[in-house]
Amino acid sequence: QTEILRPILYSYFRSSCSWRVRIALALKGIDYETVPINLIKDGGQQFSKDFQALNPMKQVPALKIDGITIHQSLAIIEYLEETRPTPRLLPQDPKKRASVRMISDLIAGGIQPLQNLSVLKQVEEKFQLTWAQNAIISGFNALEQILQSTAGTYCVGDEVTMADLCLVPQVANAERFKVDCTPYPTISSINKRLLVLEAFQVTHPCRQPDTPTELRA
Amino acid sequence: QTEILRPILYSYFRSSCSWRVRIALALKGIDYETVPINLIKDGGQQFSKDFQALNPMKQVPALKIDGITIHQSLAIIEYLEETRPTPRLLPQDPKKRASVRMISDLIAGGIQPLQNLSVLKQVEEKFQLTWAQNAIISGFNALEQILQSTAGTYCVGDEVTMADLCLVPQVANAERFKVDCTPYPTISSINKRLLVLEAFQVTHPCRQPDTPTELRA
Repeated sequence: QTEILRPILYSYFRSSCSWRVRIALALKGIDYETVPINLIKDGGQQFSKDFQALNPMKQVPALKIDGITIHQSLAIIEYLEETRPTPRLLPQDPKKRASVRMISDLIAGGIQPLQNLSVLKQVEEKFQLTWAQNAIISGFNALEQILQSTAGTYCVGDEVTMADLCLVPQVANAERFKVDCTPYPTISSINKRLLVLEAFQVTHPCRQPDTPTELRA
Repeated sequence: QTEILRPILYSYFRSSCSWRVRIALALKGIDYETVPINLIKDGGQQFSKDFQALNPMKQVPALKIDGITIHQSLAIIEYLEETRPTPRLLPQDPKKRASVRMISDLIAGGIQPLQNLSVLKQVEEKFQLTWAQNAIISGFNALEQILQSTAGTYCVGDEVTMADLCLVPQVANAERFKVDCTPYPTISSINKRLLVLEAFQVTHPCRQPDTPTELRA
């Protein structure tokens, strides 16, 4: 009877990778349960035996759905896209799909992994902020240039795609790490247009079940 | 008349991300031209104006095909899969496709970016080897566990998939960084079975147009 169970998202309010998946679930209107995994409390709940059994990478997000557990945010989104195709998060044209995946991979593989908590912990404390900023700045320099040829209203054309699900949480990280975004007018204006959409608002880190009271909005 | 031109792969013999794409092209029987981008010579040819115009991320691989230029190895492979579907590099079953993408993203997003040259350059020289080893070991610990439930002859079941295209080059990196792979019997035996296949042999770093003579085999 697993079919009648709601999907379970293992999530942390502040995790940009979890946020990507939350947006996908919201856009596709998939009802789900959140199980918060606090990456800081108790030395990091992702290191618990129970969670490691779910995701040996000890990272959020992980999604229990249709009797399987998927981790890696883009793999989750692609699975949702293939099994719940409406509304579409990848365009129909293969060339445009390539652009969406290229931008998504640039953020999910080329920026976020370098500025995530577990990596920063390995850097001397006084260099952590610069390290994170460098990763974001070098990625955004490339992204700004790429978007100039792919963007319409959003990252690729005029429909919300997987690339947008990666962009907004990454810009939020940039702001947390005090990166000056004025050199990125294309990134900034797309981000602004996305942030007003309901799916991006209800899934925002400041509005999650595990958001601490002082960070709620 | 761009249709009649052969695809051009911007590649570096030793780049594990380039190798992934070379295997995909070989498996699908796509004839292509290699343009070598030497990541070391001249301070790194990826930083040239010409190459930056092709890929603002200043990374290989990049593939010129069907009138567009795609970068990010997995985005390239997904595009090839959608436009040249035979032989298949993603299974038909969405759950198995999710496993393939999960493993691919784990390697392409969770391991490789942390041990690549541009990141290591930011780490103090005496810590570089340990840094790279740590990234690979923590990823392989997870991967070994995941493969125990997904693997058949190869990473996911008995057919070669995108996950295998990520595995073999990553194991080669592990060997370069002197990671002891005996704790990873599943990874090692899948790697061994893949390395004998022709598509993995002809695309091997020791057999590329830009492989230096002393590294040829």
